[in-house]
Amino acid sequence: MVSAHSADFVWRAGGAIALSAKAGHPVHVVCLSYGERGESQGLWRKEGMTIEKVKQAREDEARQAADILGAEITFYDMGDYPLTPDRAAADRLVEDMRRVQPGVILTHVERDPYNLDHCFAHELALRCRMVAQAAGHPSAHPPIGAPQVLCFEPHQPEQCHFKPDLLLDITEVFDLKRAAMAAMGGAQGHLVDYYTDLGTRRGVQYRRNGGVGAEHAEAYESIFPTVATAIV
Amino acid sequence: MVSAHSADFVWRAGGAIALSAKAGHPVHVVCLSYGERGESQGLWRKEGMTIEKVKQAREDEARQAADILGAEITFYDMGDYPLTPDRAAADRLVEDMRRVQPGVILTHVERDPYNLDHCFAHELALRCRMVAQAAGHPSAHPPIGAPQVLCFEPHQPEQCHFKPDLLLDITEVFDLKRAAMAAMGGAQGHLVDYYTDLGTRRGVQYRRNGGVGAEHAEAYESIFPTVATAIV
Amino acid sequence: MVSAHSADFVWRAGGAIALSAKAGHPVHVVCLSYGERGESQGLWRKEGMTIEKVKQAREDEARQAADILGAEITFYDMGDYPLTPDRAAADRLVEDMRRVQPGVILTHVERDPYNLDHCFAHELALRCRMVAQAAGHPSAHPPIGAPQVLCFEPHQPEQCHFKPDLLLDITEVFDLKRAAMAAMGGAQGHLVDYYTDLGTRRGVQYRRNGGVGAEHAEAYESIFPTVATAIV
Amino acid sequence: MVSAHSADFVWRAGGAIALSAKAGHPVHVVCLSYGERGESQGLWRKEGMTIEKVKQAREDEARQAADILGAEITFYDMGDYPLTPDRAAADRLVEDMRRVQPGVILTHVERDPYNLDHCFAHELALRCRMVAQAAGHPSAHPPIGAPQVLCFEPHQPEQCHFKPDLLLDITEVFDLKRAAMAAMGGAQGHLVDYYTDLGTRRGVQYRRNGGVGAEHAEAYESIFPTVATAIV
Amino acid sequence: MVSAHSADFVWRAGGAIALSAKAGHPVHVVCLSYGERGESQGLWRKEGMTIEKVKQAREDEARQAADILGAEITFYDMGDYPLTPDRAAADRLVEDMRRVQPGVILTHVERDPYNLDHCFAHELALRCRMVAQAAGHPSAHPPIGAPQVLCFEPHQPEQCHFKPDLLLDITEVFDLKRAAMAAMGGAQGHLVDYYTDLGTRRGVQYRRNGGVGAEHAEAYESIFPTVATAIV
Amino acid sequence: MVSAHSADFVWRAGGAIALSAKAGHPVHVVCLSYGERGESQGLWRKEGMTIEKVKQAREDEARQAADILGAEITFYDMGDYPLTPDRAAADRLVEDMRRVQPGVILTHVERDPYNLDHCFAHELALRCRMVAQAAGHPSAHPPIGAPQVLCFEPHQPEQCHFKPDLLLDITEVFDLKRAAMAAMGGAQGHLVDYYTDLGTRRGVQYRRNGGVGAEHAEAYESIFPTVATAIV
Repeated sequence: MVSAHSADFVWRAGGAIALSAKAGHPVHVVCLSYGERGESQGLWRKEGMTIEKVKQAREDEARQAADILGAEITFYDMGDYPLTPDRAAADRLVEDMRRVQPGVILTHVERDPYNLDHCFAHELALRCRMVAQAAGHPSAHPPIGAPQVLCFEPHQPEQCHFKPDLLLDITEVFDLKRAAMAAMGGAQGHLVDYYTDLGTRRGVQYRRNGGVGAEHAEAYESIFPTVATAIV
Repeated sequence: MVSAHSADFVWRAGGAIALSAKAGHPVHVVCLSYGERGESQGLWRKEGMTIEKVKQAREDEARQAADILGAEITFYDMGDYPLTPDRAAADRLVEDMRRVQPGVILTHVERDPYNLDHCFAHELALRCRMVAQAAGHPSAHPPIGAPQVLCFEPHQPEQCHFKPDLLLDITEVFDLKRAAMAAMGGAQGHLVDYYTDLGTRRGVQYRRNGGVGAEHAEAYESIFPTVATAIV
Repeated sequence: MVSAHSADFVWRAGGAIALSAKAGHPVHVVCLSYGERGESQGLWRKEGMTIEKVKQAREDEARQAADILGAEITFYDMGDYPLTPDRAAADRLVEDMRRVQPGVILTHVERDPYNLDHCFAHELALRCRMVAQAAGHPSAHPPIGAPQVLCFEPHQPEQCHFKPDLLLDITEVFDLKRAAMAAMGGAQGHLVDYYTDLGTRRGVQYRRNGGVGAEHAEAYESIFPTVATAIV
Repeated sequence: MVSAHSADFVWRAGGAIALSAKAGHPVHVVCLSYGERGESQGLWRKEGMTIEKVKQAREDEARQAADILGAEITFYDMGDYPLTPDRAAADRLVEDMRRVQPGVILTHVERDPYNLDHCFAHELALRCRMVAQAAGHPSAHPPIGAPQVLCFEPHQPEQCHFKPDLLLDITEVFDLKRAAMAAMGGAQGHLVDYYTDLGTRRGVQYRRNGGVGAEHAEAYESIFPTVATAIV
Repeated sequence: MVSAHSADFVWRAGGAIALSAKAGHPVHVVCLSYGERGESQGLWRKEGMTIEKVKQAREDEARQAADILGAEITFYDMGDYPLTPDRAAADRLVEDMRRVQPGVILTHVERDPYNLDHCFAHELALRCRMVAQAAGHPSAHPPIGAPQVLCFEPHQPEQCHFKPDLLLDITEVFDLKRAAMAAMGGAQGHLVDYYTDLGTRRGVQYRRNGGVGAEHAEAYESIFPTVATAIV
Repeated sequence: MVSAHSADFVWRAGGAIALSAKAGHPVHVVCLSYGERGESQGLWRKEGMTIEKVKQAREDEARQAADILGAEITFYDMGDYPLTPDRAAADRLVEDMRRVQPGVILTHVERDPYNLDHCFAHELALRCRMVAQAAGHPSAHPPIGAPQVLCFEPHQPEQCHFKPDLLLDITEVFDLKRAAMAAMGGAQGHLVDYYTDLGTRRGVQYRRNGGVGAEHAEAYESIFPTVATAIV
């Protein structure tokens, strides 16, 4: 999971993370940035704030949310608004992918005119996946396979050319997602209701697309074809 | 499975059909046309051919191929080059969908500038799926659910905006597909090698996208989002 | 406003209708179908239903909703699931456009794989607009100008390639929209909450795109370029 | 060349026609409609006009323009605004294609929200091309090969998703095109300057894309891949 | 207004600038480059030219054009062909946006295969808009709101995926635009007629899309949805 | 020809290169990288391999392949997986373009989610083409004209939005391409059959699109419109 800002993984993919963790798959979240500048307006309204205090507060919240969801979390501290390209960070992400050997990678969509940091995270994730596959890349860990890349839902999906091809039933872990969202409340509290409603909305669509019983769902778009041994 | 011409289901989806049949799922093939005009050049080269003889030959071949793959087959005889819209045929397809209650529907892609009969079949399949879902449609059978629609691969995929999102491992039934293709040989024998090579090519891609062990595959594009309860 | 089924205008464009009516612009709703087959599952669950009873119930509800919103309404009764192309109905729509001289036309999006009746309504609206513009079309009324065509939001927007370019603040008439939605409740009551939430969601986006104060909004996609004499 | 209305072939493809005719290739123009309703506003402003008089005037102008360009012309009289689908006309077009054995087919673009008759002409051209290729289609003439289909430029290209991939130098025949446009002046005289300017504009682009010496050009979009034996 | 090269703002958006200035809105033009290498072929044909002389000539012309249009102008001198990414320039643009608090931002389109400097300017404008919105970005000025971004017309619009959704009537300021274009004549004199014709062409389209009275227009494509309180 | 990795030019464009060389046009191949990390798995399986040995082996193979095809070859050694942006390399490519004055440039497609080095090569080729055209770019060689850019076929074309518009008959040089592919065998031997089958497949399509006699073909997508003085 490659998240541009420290909260993205909660709002957009908290259900998938909790679901996988609950099923016993280790989940690793990489936050490229703390989101200390662009997505912490709640904190900046408090008196006496400094960039370091905001970063610490964001880290604390994100760690707590990751704990609730059952994920390991790492912060790369690459700057925020804008995220800054950096060979060292890219190398670190490649090494983390090699170490973790992900079965699937979650990240942002390719295009988001509201937030180019998201585009940067997308490109970085694809680029590092490619490097991590290379037989000749020097590393203590073996090359990774060809994990699917799932893009989670951006804030204004239609403007980002987001076309979901996967609706994931997160009903059984929705209480965990809600708790994790609540933990992020200091900086972006107004989003909890927004993403709860979104979960309901995607749940309705889950049922309209042939699914059974979901009350809450998350939407994803796959970058690569899915491989399967049966079509039902 | 809604096939424009009597052979399309073999070349393009024979593997999926055989795989499902082998797994115990009943498979029903509807051939809207015998392909008697546009896709029977081999037969028309023979002396003394008439439209009825070609239709009979095409039906015989297609029945044999369906038998090999393990599918039930029905012919609507809607004309060929062009297929002709017809309310009665549409009603019949709705009724067949109601009777069969398909878990998934295979058909042509939306756009194919080489062959507008394929587009017609696509639209008819979507339209009849919609009608078959309607609570108020009068029928002896109950409404269908919301089956996925998978578009199989057109002859020149890039020109048809075909972007596969599903690669299906058909290795274990490829001998059946090959036999079914051979059964179609009278009219379009030159395609057997073409589609065998294509199966190999899609098999390579299956492995490049994280799959294991496939030698032959088929490619599909989904119309609707997939619903899932886990992301693996 | 060209609505495929008798309820579409309420869920998808009730706010725009009420807003225009309140501002003193006459609003005319054309329902091509009563939605008697495909979108009346609530009614069909009742005992003793017949197609005529369902059509009457749908007409009553739709008239009540149109009254609440302040619009005139006409029913073309073109059949449902599927809507059936019909030269007489097209001629009637052209004549209605000539009579009404619309400043803007609201209708469905071009593509909707879930519901091809919507696509049919879209194409019919564009085709009749073109004919109504023709100098040589015989009619008691003069040709229309070049009204914008605004597509309202489909049920699953991303699957329909819907990319809104207009967010409309409907806060001041949202109570009217809600009342009109409630009036449709007999057949599709489960949608009232869904579309209320959607209004809130589009309202959030309204504010995120530079708007002030909206609590509820509706989203539209324009077919033609907008003409303007200033860029603000 | 399949032209929806009697003048389209002049404005949009007059240069290509004159160029081919001048090079000794026979050019055949099929006008599906006289454009008697939608594109004859100049004529309808005259007193005492009837539909028959307008059709006659349009035919006279179009014949004169075709003469100037060096093309044979046929009128199908399929109605106008809207063009009306008709099996007999389709069969006639197939037969004309069989007889003519075109090396290339010029027609309208696939999508034009301003004018759905253009879309209809496009689809008809593709569908009839397919039928004319069919070995089993009964005809006195042999099947056609696989002629390229070139879409000429619509009035508002960007709104029609028109992306030209071919710029054709028409400098040496531009006087003929201008004369042919002048011949259409009765009904649509205001367009002569518009399309002269467009020719200049496409000429500038011709030079910007590596061409030499063109003062006037026309733009086309190909439906099928071009086949070539060299890339320079 | 973020212009890649010193002349782009004149050819492509001179009308919008003059119109806004005339209405009393301050207009600020940022030229990332003088266009000293790629768009000054007229100057380079003169004897004794050096890069500094060309830059000075370009600056003089651009200042004169800005004066005529009524805009303030700033030069970032970021190099030309190619523009070179530079954190300091990005920071400067953010600060300028903060200071100016733009109501709308004009810039290049996202994609232009002829000129990747234009793509760079587009991305820089979006990225800096995002940073200028961030609550935590350190600056003497407050965060900006959510100004619309309007992309002006590229030289070969269809190749750049440009689909205008806004046609702006610039008739009343066209004499100013023409004078400003004339002021740029030293380097790119051949473009004055080209862009005058383009203005006429877009003016025709303005009227074809329902506008009244425009003789000249400019075309724009919006990045974000427009917010409105009425649909007219 | 701008090739990301040392072997790309062989698999994807070997036919075009051999064809042009045979016709007497000089062909220049620029390999940005040796492909030493990501596309040399065959070599890395051997014992005692070092990055320098792999690079040398790749260079030897590529030189041999270029010799067979008849092309000059240059290695930029920009790193591999990922290729690293570098102003010096860009300047060198501009200078090489100025020196060579290419009639056409072959390179990778714009988008390839499997391999972002390919995207980087595409962008670099377009950017350097632009700079090489600039009148004011200092160089011993004159500006280039406006050469077409042809994108060759990526490994999984549909996932890369590849839509070929040019099919090139390479039958007469296919033995050379096969020999050149064989020369690359040390590192990627499994691809020879894959690309031979692909050549056959594109050959079938060549004939289906109106071409005569081709047994093997290559597919290309053009970035810019083609200029022509006749449409055949």
